[in-house]
Amino acid sequence: MSEATMHQIVLAARPHGRPSINDFRFEKTAMPVMLPGGVLLRVLYLSLDPYMRGRMDDMKSYAKPVSLGEAMPGRGIAEVIASGHPAYAVGDTVVAQTGWRTHAAVTGEGLRKLDPALAPITTALGVLGMPGFTAYAGLTLIGKPRCGETVAVAAASGPVGSLVGQLAKITGCRTVGIAGGADKCRYVRDELGFDAAIDHREHCFPEQLKRACPDGIDVYFENVGGAVWQAVLPLLNQFARVPVCGLIAQYNGPGDSEEAHRLAPTMREVLTKSLTMRGFISADFVEEHYPQFLRVVSAAVAKGRVRSREDITDGLENAPQAFMGMLEGRNFGKVLVRVASDAGTLSTRNGA
Amino acid sequence: MSEATMHQIVLAARPHGRPSINDFRFEKTAMPVMLPGGVLLRVLYLSLDPYMRGRMDDMKSYAKPVSLGEAMPGRGIAEVIASGHPAYAVGDTVVAQTGWRTHAAVTGEGLRKLDPALAPITTALGVLGMPGFTAYAGLTLIGKPRCGETVAVAAASGPVGSLVGQLAKITGCRTVGIAGGADKCRYVRDELGFDAAIDHREHCFPEQLKRACPDGIDVYFENVGGAVWQAVLPLLNQFARVPVCGLIAQYNGPGDSEEAHRLAPTMREVLTKSLTMRGFISADFVEEHYPQFLRVVSAAVAKGRVRSREDITDGLENAPQAFMGMLEGRNFGKVLVRVASDAGTLSTRNGA
Repeated sequence: MSEATMHQIVLAARPHGRPSINDFRFEKTAMPVMLPGGVLLRVLYLSLDPYMRGRMDDMKSYAKPVSLGEAMPGRGIAEVIASGHPAYAVGDTVVAQTGWRTHAAVTGEGLRKLDPALAPITTALGVLGMPGFTAYAGLTLIGKPRCGETVAVAAASGPVGSLVGQLAKITGCRTVGIAGGADKCRYVRDELGFDAAIDHREHCFPEQLKRACPDGIDVYFENVGGAVWQAVLPLLNQFARVPVCGLIAQYNGPGDSEEAHRLAPTMREVLTKSLTMRGFISADFVEEHYPQFLRVVSAAVAKGRVRSREDITDGLENAPQAFMGMLEGRNFGKVLVRVASDAGTLSTRNGA
Repeated sequence: MSEATMHQIVLAARPHGRPSINDFRFEKTAMPVMLPGGVLLRVLYLSLDPYMRGRMDDMKSYAKPVSLGEAMPGRGIAEVIASGHPAYAVGDTVVAQTGWRTHAAVTGEGLRKLDPALAPITTALGVLGMPGFTAYAGLTLIGKPRCGETVAVAAASGPVGSLVGQLAKITGCRTVGIAGGADKCRYVRDELGFDAAIDHREHCFPEQLKRACPDGIDVYFENVGGAVWQAVLPLLNQFARVPVCGLIAQYNGPGDSEEAHRLAPTMREVLTKSLTMRGFISADFVEEHYPQFLRVVSAAVAKGRVRSREDITDGLENAPQAFMGMLEGRNFGKVLVRVASDAGTLSTRNGA
């Protein structure tokens, strides 16, 4: 009878501001039934990403909100344990929309088979997955950095920011990373090869950022918003480009310094500096650009020109804590949850 | 001796918020001396434009601020009264950076000769001048409207907004104009042919705007900011484009409703709707696109497919009042000052 049940984490309540542990519920439920032509999956790793915070609110966004009592959504790496789909066999490793679950029944749509011999499978949730593609697409298609320009990015030790900086460096840009804490800054500078790394928790952060950008900023890859944006704004050069892929600083609602976060100064800079600000989600570009991304970045990873780092938590039941920590910046690298206890044998941990 | 003097209006004090009459000074000064290879001009018409408000502040912008005691800057239509330049003869009519002056000595740079037979000379400061080019460049190069899309623009009876809507209509778009007061709205709808015109002074303006845009807004041409932007924001469609050429609502500093003008909602929409917001000034595109603009819009004006309207004040000494009125939206059409008393004989007034 134990095979007939699984575990999942559902949205128990809608958070007001920061999520709390009570907004999630870990529950046992019946094993899902394989759909005709679909596959049954045993989840090995779950990816935790900032966008999930948006799904917890009852507001229209680029995806519909999670319903109360529904499993939290998310991408996972999983093993096929039963298949009704000709392209997938039992034992295959795939990336799929599994949700925060130990098992999932999915159709073949949106499924991608992984070759564990090519790269550690967990990279398919990070540098070679959606976070990596977000970095690649936002930087190359919107930021369009030119050799000699300055590219700045926040959350620079995270899965998106770290690739933004490394790709910009390959393009010949001066790269300035912003991260929280000395360890992350050291990693960004020494391991990832950014030209400078600035700690946004330091008191004189805006001044330090300014010193690190003597020629201003030509591309600011926006994934945090809030106080970091306020520090970046005056440094932007004429015709600077601002791809906007995330605003983690405002996902939990107004912060203490909301008073300073007025619209007018931003609009004024957009106008007077002929800035381009463009929001995007990776799905906007997937069809046209994903294959090229996989080719380019896989090669760079294989050659050691692009490095990445993972922050793995064990046990699905610990996903809420890991998620809440990530929203506070307490993670160090791509946040993953090891869902199946023997997953470690299939993966190489921490490519950095 | 009377030929040896001229009049000008200088910046007397930097305004705090709204400019007052005391921030300007009308003064008599010596007639300027013609520069070698330059021309001496007698100003016929002066153009008043919202951007001039920015120059009155001591803040870095796309142009440097006016110094205290210096003549207010601006473009004018003028008659050449002495010439040391082979391309310009006495009696020629030109567009030039004259400033708020009755006479000016300028080099040949940036001067453009007008043919009064082709179009009323004052159109060179409006629909066939920088305001027209701003509309054309922002709409076609940033907004990129497609047939069937909805294009909205504020200050729709003004020189920029009116052309934005008329060009969008020619492209096959639904055009929604926003203007202040019933007369302007009637003009926008009945004379300019917009599909709808909404009065932003009406109490239920956001609801009316929403009703006028049943399919949302694909291009919002931003030239005012403030409360109008707040009403537009929720109506923007996925992948909407927002050319930003002006923010007249915030030029005089924070308004009453500043509390509502927080950055976070704007950034959230930029992100979740994959919006493109791009600031520009006409100079960004002049070199590459001005000739094409002049061809296209001159032809449309000649055929009566594009109409325009002027709001003319007599006498340079009245320029400050006209300027302050424009910042409050009290003008109705392109604001011009007739500087020379016999200028009327050279121009046809109000093409609408």
